[in-house]
Amino acid sequence: METLQYKDFGVDIDEGNNFVQALKPLVKETFNPLVLGGLGGFSGCFTMPMNYKNPILCAATDGVGSKLSLALAYNKLDGIGIDLVAMCVNDLICDFATPMFFLDYYATHKLVSQDALRIVRGITEGCKQAQCALIGGETAEMPSVYAKGDFDLAGFAVGIAEKDDIERRAGITEGDVILGLKSSGFHSNGFSLIRGIIDTKKIDVEMNFSGGLLIDSILQPTQIYVSSFLQNKDSIKGLSHITGGGIKENLIRILPENTQAIIDEYAIKTPEIYQFFLPYINKDEAWRVFNMGIGMAVVVPKEKAHELAQNMQASIIGHIQAGQKQVLIK
Amino acid sequence: METLQYKDFGVDIDEGNNFVQALKPLVKETFNPLVLGGLGGFSGCFTMPMNYKNPILCAATDGVGSKLSLALAYNKLDGIGIDLVAMCVNDLICDFATPMFFLDYYATHKLVSQDALRIVRGITEGCKQAQCALIGGETAEMPSVYAKGDFDLAGFAVGIAEKDDIERRAGITEGDVILGLKSSGFHSNGFSLIRGIIDTKKIDVEMNFSGGLLIDSILQPTQIYVSSFLQNKDSIKGLSHITGGGIKENLIRILPENTQAIIDEYAIKTPEIYQFFLPYINKDEAWRVFNMGIGMAVVVPKEKAHELAQNMQASIIGHIQAGQKQVLIK
Repeated sequence: METLQYKDFGVDIDEGNNFVQALKPLVKETFNPLVLGGLGGFSGCFTMPMNYKNPILCAATDGVGSKLSLALAYNKLDGIGIDLVAMCVNDLICDFATPMFFLDYYATHKLVSQDALRIVRGITEGCKQAQCALIGGETAEMPSVYAKGDFDLAGFAVGIAEKDDIERRAGITEGDVILGLKSSGFHSNGFSLIRGIIDTKKIDVEMNFSGGLLIDSILQPTQIYVSSFLQNKDSIKGLSHITGGGIKENLIRILPENTQAIIDEYAIKTPEIYQFFLPYINKDEAWRVFNMGIGMAVVVPKEKAHELAQNMQASIIGHIQAGQKQVLIK
Repeated sequence: METLQYKDFGVDIDEGNNFVQALKPLVKETFNPLVLGGLGGFSGCFTMPMNYKNPILCAATDGVGSKLSLALAYNKLDGIGIDLVAMCVNDLICDFATPMFFLDYYATHKLVSQDALRIVRGITEGCKQAQCALIGGETAEMPSVYAKGDFDLAGFAVGIAEKDDIERRAGITEGDVILGLKSSGFHSNGFSLIRGIIDTKKIDVEMNFSGGLLIDSILQPTQIYVSSFLQNKDSIKGLSHITGGGIKENLIRILPENTQAIIDEYAIKTPEIYQFFLPYINKDEAWRVFNMGIGMAVVVPKEKAHELAQNMQASIIGHIQAGQKQVLIK
């Protein structure tokens, strides 16, 4: 009887092993002494830091959404790994967690080491920016789920926080100031809409724009705010990562009852790339889908606002006042 | 100018919010007092257990591979979430880690709450079996990557281990006994091959088989070995989760230099479902792709072998002897 081999159905264990060998040196660049590289065999192992009174582990997972498809369509894959890390670690710091380690899941039609390494290079770059170690990952060939050339990515990040710090946001109160940390562009949200506009309006994304190509501005990797957070965390009362839902739906998540956030629309400098797309979008919708130029909102005490704004290269975009819990953009 | 809405391009924020509301009670069933449910806003928060001398965090990520496509094709999605958890936590315990929490990434063409809840119900069932809490997850609609009805899943588990325990496998030595913990079938490996055989040989997977349908035996959820591990871990010297690569490529990962594992092929009772597929596969290939009936190999001291075999409902499938590091199946 004719017997069948695994390779006949598109899964190549050897190419997988080759890929793992090639990514090892990249991954090691993210290591720090807490990583137990040679110790675990089946999982990624990381020494628990012991300098916390009431340590809380915080974990976040995310993907990069439809930004992936656009990056794929124009073969601009190098920044996608940075987006993946950013989406996770920017969530962690909102719970006052210091990122410790990261893992990625990469599933594709067929593993092509060269392409996969472009993704991993981005991930390791993101991990270095976020000061966290890439301690594990899974690479899966799924020819039945992903079309030729297609893939998906998921990221997982774990950080550690002091319990008292997580609770600090409960102290947000009238008079506090809201700082806006600049986004680098769309980050990783709203790309179904952006792609829809590109298609419907037949926009040539390879046109020149702002000293480069339009597609490069569109795909600009997500800003990672970890070092801004780590350098200033003792003075911060709350942070909100502005993702899908925009500043309204995200900032409200850190407001205590009977406080409202007043955002001054005109204090926000929307990046140039937005000017290109905003004319096609209903304004309320735009504020609900995009970060509009602010990737992270940070609530700080009034007396420290100017110092912190300078430290974090942020602008003052609003303040907290008493009232029904809501975010008002004025 | 006509403006465009996010919904026009297949992303429905409201359906997403509805789904999140529906899954909350399911997720809470997995909680334990260490979960800080109401505390974190952006990440899942978990209180660090403090009863470890040298605590090591262990993290694993995995998907369910092509098993997903087969489950989708026959609308048998309820067990897939168990597979997802199993693939991660079975890796954790191989590094002597007690699973603490789990997160999932679920990306699909278009979110249909009812279908997604079937997946999440499996994940929460798996988490309960693994005694770990589901503290976070991401649900993404990516109509440009996934075909209609298609989706992918990634899981991410974190556990905690005592450093001395992880190092225990270095003590594996001549005379130790290898126990085999029964698999429930193919678990989540080799499904590209299985699907290939089904297609090439035109197998009707909805035929009766072993008191049910063939497809149900094929898709039997992966066994979770966490309680067997937790109840016996003080006596165990090493564990190896048998996944892609089979017993040869996985068991070798825990062998110290100059030890070899001798496996007695005839001591392994291959589940009935294997008998159906093995005739189509080259024997060496089968041992390289499938678990062949043993989902977890456990190395124990000879004097405890019989007691532990009984405790874990395992069979003695081999032993350790001195020699060049390798796994021999005899």
